[in-house]
Amino acid sequence: MTQSAKTISNFNELLTHLKDSGVRRRLAVVWPEDDHTRDAVDAAFAEGFVEPILVCSAETQASCAGRYATLPAASPEEAAARAVELVREGKADMLMKGFVNTDVLLRAVLNKQTGILPPGNVLTHITAAHIPGYPRLLFFTDAAVIPFPTEAQRRSQLHYLADLCRAFRIECPRIALIHCSEKPDAKHFPYTEDYLAIRQEAAEGRYGRCIVDGPLDLKTSCSPEALRAKHIDSPVGGCADAVILPNIEAGNLFYKAITLFAQAETAAVLQGTEVPVVLPSRGDSVQSKLYSLALAAVGAG
Amino acid sequence: MTQSAKTISNFNELLTHLKDSGVRRRLAVVWPEDDHTRDAVDAAFAEGFVEPILVCSAETQASCAGRYATLPAASPEEAAARAVELVREGKADMLMKGFVNTDVLLRAVLNKQTGILPPGNVLTHITAAHIPGYPRLLFFTDAAVIPFPTEAQRRSQLHYLADLCRAFRIECPRIALIHCSEKPDAKHFPYTEDYLAIRQEAAEGRYGRCIVDGPLDLKTSCSPEALRAKHIDSPVGGCADAVILPNIEAGNLFYKAITLFAQAETAAVLQGTEVPVVLPSRGDSVQSKLYSLALAAVGAG
Repeated sequence: MTQSAKTISNFNELLTHLKDSGVRRRLAVVWPEDDHTRDAVDAAFAEGFVEPILVCSAETQASCAGRYATLPAASPEEAAARAVELVREGKADMLMKGFVNTDVLLRAVLNKQTGILPPGNVLTHITAAHIPGYPRLLFFTDAAVIPFPTEAQRRSQLHYLADLCRAFRIECPRIALIHCSEKPDAKHFPYTEDYLAIRQEAAEGRYGRCIVDGPLDLKTSCSPEALRAKHIDSPVGGCADAVILPNIEAGNLFYKAITLFAQAETAAVLQGTEVPVVLPSRGDSVQSKLYSLALAAVGAG
Repeated sequence: MTQSAKTISNFNELLTHLKDSGVRRRLAVVWPEDDHTRDAVDAAFAEGFVEPILVCSAETQASCAGRYATLPAASPEEAAARAVELVREGKADMLMKGFVNTDVLLRAVLNKQTGILPPGNVLTHITAAHIPGYPRLLFFTDAAVIPFPTEAQRRSQLHYLADLCRAFRIECPRIALIHCSEKPDAKHFPYTEDYLAIRQEAAEGRYGRCIVDGPLDLKTSCSPEALRAKHIDSPVGGCADAVILPNIEAGNLFYKAITLFAQAETAAVLQGTEVPVVLPSRGDSVQSKLYSLALAAVGAG
């Protein structure tokens, strides 16, 4: 087994993997008018896995002259439209939000005529988290985009999660469909019935090589001890690589709980679009933004 | 300010407070046929704040003879019914689930003729968590009972939380109504509009002395730095004593995330019934069960 075939189990290994495999993605950055965004782009460029194209003001264009390719824009809205156009023209492999409201970028991304969400595709948000004490990365969806996923949306989430885990060289990812209990409850939680159907489809190979179980709660998904204590038998075995969270309130709260209280490091990316889209929050650290770009770079492969 | 008027900010201080104030509650224990339950009862008895009444099998009755008051029962169902009857007769101040399914106990508690949920009262689940790094206890609801709270149920949750915080000598508790964002969104999340109404009622004094704000996310509720970084002004100030979580999936996931990944210690109790009800999970530590009994003992005051 070569070094590059090893499972990527934290963000340092992710950066090493990108370096070793010579990945280099053309990154369109939408309106990078703030230091935070430019610092993250600089860091990713220094790591070697991106070739930035800044869609920016004349001022930023002047200050970056010679270092990065640039495209002028007069406003955040125009920058978003131009960056999306770059993707449509095959000139960018991934997109990053700069100093622009999320709504503005999403409008350009989702535009039915000029956008980059293929008809029928589901836009969803995936986070990869390194949680101290948990021996692998934990991928989860959705902390930011889909309020209450439909069954079809959950199927797409599962496809994306399984693909992304495999891009991290997890040969047979273990994925849990999360609910507050292990018992399906069609009356109060209709989606727990969907879980059973999805689990069956996964067993039939519909999502590629992966192990899917649910409904499971977080503890039985992520703790072999908790699984044993509850006398539950699950092929996920308390070693989930990924979890599908039931709704955006649960997803968002989980994201914030692990970063606020468990010192988790995270990376996040939108999936479903023609190329991965990175939407950092203003409060994210430069490192978290760098990891998000690295996640997108692997996913863009 | 005397010692006993000090805010209780962790579970050790809670036990000290119970000792100092001479609190002693009559605790009906439903079917304590397992060591785990009896160990927790022993620990609470040793701390001095409970006077146990075991509603148990003849075997357990024999083994505890002389140490605790006992009442015989032939089955978990009968034990649940007898324990609830003790409450109705004014002979017990709090209830604890032993080796019996939650459903069985809840059926007895909720029985319209013989139960102990006053008409019109809302049954909900409150957790108090000590999260390392967070400088105070964090109370939250609901991890276990109400799937998707109605506006009326949320009002009751707020009443209970405010009362419980004040029992912990938090003079003016800060309570956040949690959503994934700070923006109300009537279309996708109708309850965020309810939040605005509840906030207004709180400002008018309907919930006693307390500060209520929302919608807020977890970070802006529990981190002054996150609040500042987002340039948001909130009277909760990133120092929430309590949070109302939007639905059971979020509540349950939060409970499990902080215990699994942030080494949180927790105590939990049902509110709304004539006396507090403690429903430990099989996997809870003896210490967590002890803390839950202590939480119930304060709340029963």
